[in-house]
Amino acid sequence: MDVRIYEVGPRDGLQNEAQIVPTEAKIELINRLADAGLAWIEASSFVNPKWIPQLADADAVLAGIRRQAGVTYSALVPNQRGLERAMAAGLREIAVFLSASETHNQKNINKSIAQTLVLLADVVKQAVAAKMRVRGYVSTVFGCPYEGEVSLASTLKVTEALLAMGVYEISIGDTIGVATPKQVHEVFAALVKEFSRERLAAHFHDTRGTGLANVVAALEEGIRTFDSSIGGLGGCPYAPGASGNIATEELVYMLNGMGYRTGVDQQKLAEAGRYIQQVLGRELPSKVLKASCAAGAAPQKGAGAS
Amino acid sequence: MDVRIYEVGPRDGLQNEAQIVPTEAKIELINRLADAGLAWIEASSFVNPKWIPQLADADAVLAGIRRQAGVTYSALVPNQRGLERAMAAGLREIAVFLSASETHNQKNINKSIAQTLVLLADVVKQAVAAKMRVRGYVSTVFGCPYEGEVSLASTLKVTEALLAMGVYEISIGDTIGVATPKQVHEVFAALVKEFSRERLAAHFHDTRGTGLANVVAALEEGIRTFDSSIGGLGGCPYAPGASGNIATEELVYMLNGMGYRTGVDQQKLAEAGRYIQQVLGRELPSKVLKASCAAGAAPQKGAGAS
Repeated sequence: MDVRIYEVGPRDGLQNEAQIVPTEAKIELINRLADAGLAWIEASSFVNPKWIPQLADADAVLAGIRRQAGVTYSALVPNQRGLERAMAAGLREIAVFLSASETHNQKNINKSIAQTLVLLADVVKQAVAAKMRVRGYVSTVFGCPYEGEVSLASTLKVTEALLAMGVYEISIGDTIGVATPKQVHEVFAALVKEFSRERLAAHFHDTRGTGLANVVAALEEGIRTFDSSIGGLGGCPYAPGASGNIATEELVYMLNGMGYRTGVDQQKLAEAGRYIQQVLGRELPSKVLKASCAAGAAPQKGAGAS
Repeated sequence: MDVRIYEVGPRDGLQNEAQIVPTEAKIELINRLADAGLAWIEASSFVNPKWIPQLADADAVLAGIRRQAGVTYSALVPNQRGLERAMAAGLREIAVFLSASETHNQKNINKSIAQTLVLLADVVKQAVAAKMRVRGYVSTVFGCPYEGEVSLASTLKVTEALLAMGVYEISIGDTIGVATPKQVHEVFAALVKEFSRERLAAHFHDTRGTGLANVVAALEEGIRTFDSSIGGLGGCPYAPGASGNIATEELVYMLNGMGYRTGVDQQKLAEAGRYIQQVLGRELPSKVLKASCAAGAAPQKGAGAS
C-alpha cells in the first residue's frame, strides 16, 4: 500500500454535522467503510458529550461495529476519562489532540498548550503501557481563526513533545483550510528535516478548494498518510456552511490516477458515501460523489469548449 | 502579472446553467469581473441560439458592457456567421473550438476533426486579416465521455494545426474533469516540448475535485494561463449535477498563496461571485465563495482535531 488513508468521517466528519446520526447508521457506515478497504478508521470520540452531542453514543458505536481483521479502529481521547472509555471499548489505538496556536488551544479546550502537554503525557503514558498505539493531532498549523499566522516553531515544538511521549504519528492539520501548496512545502520540508517522515501525516481541509493541491505538495515532501472524510462529511466549525475535510472519494480518485495504491475499492467507497448522504438527507460536498450520482443525459450540441 | 487568468464564467459557465440569466445581469456580471481586475473575459458565445439558448443575447450583451481599458473581451465563434457577429460587435478577440476526440467532435458539432479544421482555417484566416486575435480550445484532451482515453497524438496534431492557422494560444481542456496531476504533467511536458509554452493555456474542470491539483502540475510544466469561472459557474454537460469549471476565486486564492500575481482583487471578485449567485438563486460550487459567505459563529468547544 503506497499511501495510507486515515478515514476520519465517522468522527471528525460527523462531529461537525448539525444532525445527530442514529447509532445504527453510524455502525452501518463504519462497517461499509471497512468493506471498502479503508484500514484506519477513526470511529468516534470520547470528548464529553456535553461538548460533542453528535458522538455521545461512542460506547454503543464501538460495541456495535463488526471489527474486521486488518482494520485499525480508533477514537479521539481528550483526557483520562476518555482513555478509560477507550480501554473499556477494547480499542488498540486512540488519538489525542492540541493546537499549534495558543489562543485556539485555549478557546477549544480551556487550557494552555503547556498544560495540555502535561495532561496528555500522562494519558499517553498509560495508553502506551496498555500496549495501545497513540496518534496525535496538531491543529491550526497553517493558520488560526483567532491568531491568523501560526509560527512553525510552535508546530515543531508540539510535534517534538508528542513524539517524545510515545505518540507514533503526528497528523498535521490545516484546521481552517487556508493552506496553499507553497506553505505546505515549507511546513513539511521543515518537519521532515527534524522528524522521520513515517511519523508524519497530513490532515487537510478543502475549505477553499486547495485540499488536493496540498496533498500533492505533501506527497512531494515524502508524506504518505492522509486524513480524509467520506463524502467530505463535516464542515468548518469556524465558518458554518463552508466545507471541511477533504473527501475520501476525491483523495482516492487522485491517488489512483497518480499511480499510488490505497487498498480502497472506489465502487464500494461510492456506496458508503451514497449511504451516509441518504441518511443525512443532504447533498454532501464530495465532487466525486456528485459525479457518480449524476444521471447520464444527452448533452447539448454545440456545447463548445466545455 | 505572473499568471494570466482567462475568465470564462459568462460564456462557459452560463452556457451550462439551466436558467437563462437576464441580459442586464450578464452585463452587470461582466462589468464587475473587469472591476475585479480580470483582464481576459470571455463574454459570450455566437454559437447558434438554437443550441445554446442561454447565450442567445450575445449581441445585446456585447453592446451593453462597459468596455474597460486594458481588458480583452472575447466570444466563442463556431463558424463564419459567428465571426460576422463578432466583428459587428467590435470584438478584438475570438475563440474557436474543437475536440481531440473524434467521437466527441462529431457528437458536439456534427463534423469530423478534419472537416472542422478546414472550416476553422477559413474563419481564422479572416479573423487574423481583420487584425483580431484568435484563441483555440481543444477539448477532451485528458479523456472523452464517449471514447474514454484520448491519444496524446490527436491533441498534438490538432494543436499544431490551430497554431499553423494563426491561433495565438491553445487552451488545453479537461472537459469531463478526469485528469490527475500525473497525466497533466505528461500531457503538458509533451506539448511544451513541441510548442512554445507561451502558446499554451490550461482549462481544467473540478468535476472530481482535482482542479487545483492539476493547476499546480501545469504550473510546474511552465504553463502560466488558466481558464476559470466565477463561482465555479457552470457544470458538466455529461454529468448533470456534477461540477464543471474550476472556480476563479479558488484559483486566485491558491495562486496568491503561492506568490503568483494575478492582478485580481479578491474582495471585488467575491462581490462578483455573490452577485451572480444571488441572481441565479442557487448556491454556487466555489468553496471560497461559500467560506466568504459563511456567517461567523462561536464554534463548539472540544472540537478536537477539526
